[in-house]
Amino acid sequence: MSDKKLGGAGLRGQSAGETALCTVGKGSGLTYRGYDVRELAEGATFEEVAYLLLKGELPTRAQLDAYTEKLKSLRGLPDALKTVLEQIPADAHPMDVMRTGASMLGNLETEQSFDEQQAATDRLLAVLPGIITYWYRYSHDGVRIDTATDDDSIGAQFLHLLHGEKPNSLHEKVMHASLILYAEHEFNASTFTARVCASTLSDIHSCVTGAIGSLRGPLHGGANEAAMAMIEQWGSADEAERELKGMLERKEKVMGFGHAIYRVSDPRNEIIKAWSKKLADEVGDTVLYPVSERVAQVMWDEKKLFPNADFFHASAYHFMGIPTKLFTPIFVMSRVTGWAAHIFEQRANNRIIRPSADYTGPDERPFTPIDQRG
Amino acid sequence: MSDKKLGGAGLRGQSAGETALCTVGKGSGLTYRGYDVRELAEGATFEEVAYLLLKGELPTRAQLDAYTEKLKSLRGLPDALKTVLEQIPADAHPMDVMRTGASMLGNLETEQSFDEQQAATDRLLAVLPGIITYWYRYSHDGVRIDTATDDDSIGAQFLHLLHGEKPNSLHEKVMHASLILYAEHEFNASTFTARVCASTLSDIHSCVTGAIGSLRGPLHGGANEAAMAMIEQWGSADEAERELKGMLERKEKVMGFGHAIYRVSDPRNEIIKAWSKKLADEVGDTVLYPVSERVAQVMWDEKKLFPNADFFHASAYHFMGIPTKLFTPIFVMSRVTGWAAHIFEQRANNRIIRPSADYTGPDERPFTPIDQRG
Repeated sequence: MSDKKLGGAGLRGQSAGETALCTVGKGSGLTYRGYDVRELAEGATFEEVAYLLLKGELPTRAQLDAYTEKLKSLRGLPDALKTVLEQIPADAHPMDVMRTGASMLGNLETEQSFDEQQAATDRLLAVLPGIITYWYRYSHDGVRIDTATDDDSIGAQFLHLLHGEKPNSLHEKVMHASLILYAEHEFNASTFTARVCASTLSDIHSCVTGAIGSLRGPLHGGANEAAMAMIEQWGSADEAERELKGMLERKEKVMGFGHAIYRVSDPRNEIIKAWSKKLADEVGDTVLYPVSERVAQVMWDEKKLFPNADFFHASAYHFMGIPTKLFTPIFVMSRVTGWAAHIFEQRANNRIIRPSADYTGPDERPFTPIDQRG
Repeated sequence: MSDKKLGGAGLRGQSAGETALCTVGKGSGLTYRGYDVRELAEGATFEEVAYLLLKGELPTRAQLDAYTEKLKSLRGLPDALKTVLEQIPADAHPMDVMRTGASMLGNLETEQSFDEQQAATDRLLAVLPGIITYWYRYSHDGVRIDTATDDDSIGAQFLHLLHGEKPNSLHEKVMHASLILYAEHEFNASTFTARVCASTLSDIHSCVTGAIGSLRGPLHGGANEAAMAMIEQWGSADEAERELKGMLERKEKVMGFGHAIYRVSDPRNEIIKAWSKKLADEVGDTVLYPVSERVAQVMWDEKKLFPNADFFHASAYHFMGIPTKLFTPIFVMSRVTGWAAHIFEQRANNRIIRPSADYTGPDERPFTPIDQRG
């Protein structure tokens, strides 16, 4: 039996295995297979990074073109999956839709052996934008969309399906950067969920479905949604400063700041912040971006807390016309690459993940039949 | 960076938290909230044990009657869920059906706050037998069944829905014992999946959906199905002995024997073995039970391995006319009690479960734009 503290300790700082995918909080802050995430976000497309994570090395131009064409060919939704999505009401939680869509796909296109893991991953990457937008457009607008667009990237595909028209090149670039920043982050809770599931040698749809369920939790995904809900209340930077200071005095939680592992800054912030600024200029915003900047300043001055990857994502997504409740599903479209790469790793060197627990319950006691109980 | 062994180490023997629910491998072997599982399986109903796990103490007669009536009132499936189940083909993996059914329910009856956790659990307990049998009877027999039966227990409800008639009292008793034996087992991989998901403060349907996905893996659930596939090949005890010895010589894996934690015997085996014998007598079996006994004898003589909870479950379920592919879904109907109790515990004393990893990948390296790659 252990002391109370351990119960909530969450394995912090304990190694639960090996990975060749990612370093967090060392060297340049965040690397994917050795590359600084900031260099990737500036110089690569999301499809290049997906290729890097899943196959181990950056693609050549010919490899990338072939991979992009393959993903483009896999965007259509099976009729049975469309019928399932049509049963989900408009007020459902969009992460429940993603989870159910991924799970249903596993019934229709079951991974029969681990030889199929790359193909199953490519299919998930290609259809997740369609799953959420098909449900969204059907339940909110009564429209049955064709998800098999010819956009050159997953980010453009998503915006096209959502808005019904191809995005401009600035928006497509922002989506590349955003999807790259969210793609991988070592043994975070959703990735660890995927690895625990993979360690039973379950199929990849089970692993991804479980990971979506964990990302749904407000302590994990959803921080950018919470940040949006906060900043959109305020009409000016001065109002934001006043209201935020009140929140801090009342010890209310402010989402989008600080990090369990990063201590000084989140290396992803500078990238998305710069894109948010460009988008603000494009739409002529004079409120949301100044509010966001002021909030970041106050959080630093008052609490020495820095914006993490999520905070400027809120305004960036908003400027592109994305409804707040679809922010976390975008995280899924990106992180599925990291989850899948971790599943591949777990399978390649597996032992079932089965920790122990400290027992805090009653001592052994005799059973009394029900009619003799007090 | 660590040595190779750690990568597959699966947190074995490391504490990942506290629990008051269960001890494994200490004292009498397996206790639920202090009660020896063998005493529970002999003297209690499954509904009593569900109550014990979820609420902390065994119920009085009045409490049990009220709880049983409540569960009976919750058996109907929403139309949208029926439509979803009708989209799943007959050759789907039944655990994919369970996973998708639980996930879909989360869209229709979302847990809006943790105050609803007991109600959401009761609903899951009440509908999981209906989810699997509705799909099974529709996809295999083209029949749309009414899942709202008036059977007094979940075990009887399942057999009634599967066979279209109420089970006899022997079969109902076996189901009580079986569901009790499978209800809880500390931080096994599916329960740990549920707790990792719960630690992000996600909803209970996400946690249970993820746990089902982990239980699907052949290293976790499914051992009784594998045992069945093995023993049903053999026409006599002598043939079983001969063929099994061949398997052992060829170092083939034999499922249903030994255990990661138990060293001498599995306390659950004696209970289900005795019920399997009674069922063999009832149906006049002269093959499957003698084959099972001989397999257990040979495994002990040759390998000093004992049958675990799964091995005699195979013949017991078979004697009750349960198709082999529905064995693991029964495990879900039972274990959902343990999962839910662990989710309640995690929520009551939470810290997000976020371990670290040992990095084994490439050193930091400069990014080269795609058109400059070799």
